[in-house]
Amino acid sequence: MSEQPAPVQTSGSAVPGSPAAADAGPLPAELAAALKRDSAGLVAAVVQQYDTNEVLMLGWMDDEALHRTMTTGRVTFYSRSRQEYWRKGDTSGHVQWVKSVAMDCDGDALLVRVDQMGAACHTGTRTCFDGRELNVTTAQAV
Amino acid sequence: MSEQPAPVQTSGSAVPGSPAAADAGPLPAELAAALKRDSAGLVAAVVQQYDTNEVLMLGWMDDEALHRTMTTGRVTFYSRSRQEYWRKGDTSGHVQWVKSVAMDCDGDALLVRVDQMGAACHTGTRTCFDGRELNVTTAQAV
Repeated sequence: MSEQPAPVQTSGSAVPGSPAAADAGPLPAELAAALKRDSAGLVAAVVQQYDTNEVLMLGWMDDEALHRTMTTGRVTFYSRSRQEYWRKGDTSGHVQWVKSVAMDCDGDALLVRVDQMGAACHTGTRTCFDGRELNVTTAQAV
Repeated sequence: MSEQPAPVQTSGSAVPGSPAAADAGPLPAELAAALKRDSAGLVAAVVQQYDTNEVLMLGWMDDEALHRTMTTGRVTFYSRSRQEYWRKGDTSGHVQWVKSVAMDCDGDALLVRVDQMGAACHTGTRTCFDGRELNVTTAQAV
């Protein structure tokens, strides 16, 4: 559990003074209950360009990162390597403006549709998958 | 490490009798070295419809599942909940025919482009994200 960041308490979603208030995280209760986090408290977030449907990158979010992404219009990840929150574009200028967020059927993945400014990848390519194809055997419906 | 399946030895990539043969996994050495697996030995695999760019689902692969996906033309995942390999479509008929596989810049995610037969989601929807949008604050470039 060493990768799990300390929960950040925010106001707003819990009723002050209610029994649940002390334990309430930043997310609505129903969403928090549906999320299936890994052992580090994270879910995978697929980031997709909203108009072209390009898959830009995959990042990781804990409850607080998802809360910030849902409420601020800017995508925020939790960096597993740096163990800190990371608002995309703060250093690079390559901001991701949030268009929609969906959770998958079993709660362990998010699809975040954005308008990506510039390159999504820190290497300078548009997506983190560009030019990184593996040699595979392909197939088609018969 | 309890979720990590036992490595499956396959022939072909290792030279018989060479010092490395006994330890060689199913993947080419360069790829195996680049993959950044989680504590359960898995990487996230984003599955995308190759012609429409729809994000269909997210699954998990260990080295053997990736090897099977790269060499058989059919997508195979490793199921975290059932702790077994799972070739998409074997029970549902909703086969995923492999068109391409790419690894991302830091090796912890795969983009698998497929031709999806029928519904990708076990609930019957085309994708695992359909109809599961969260309430968010959206934003646009200024």
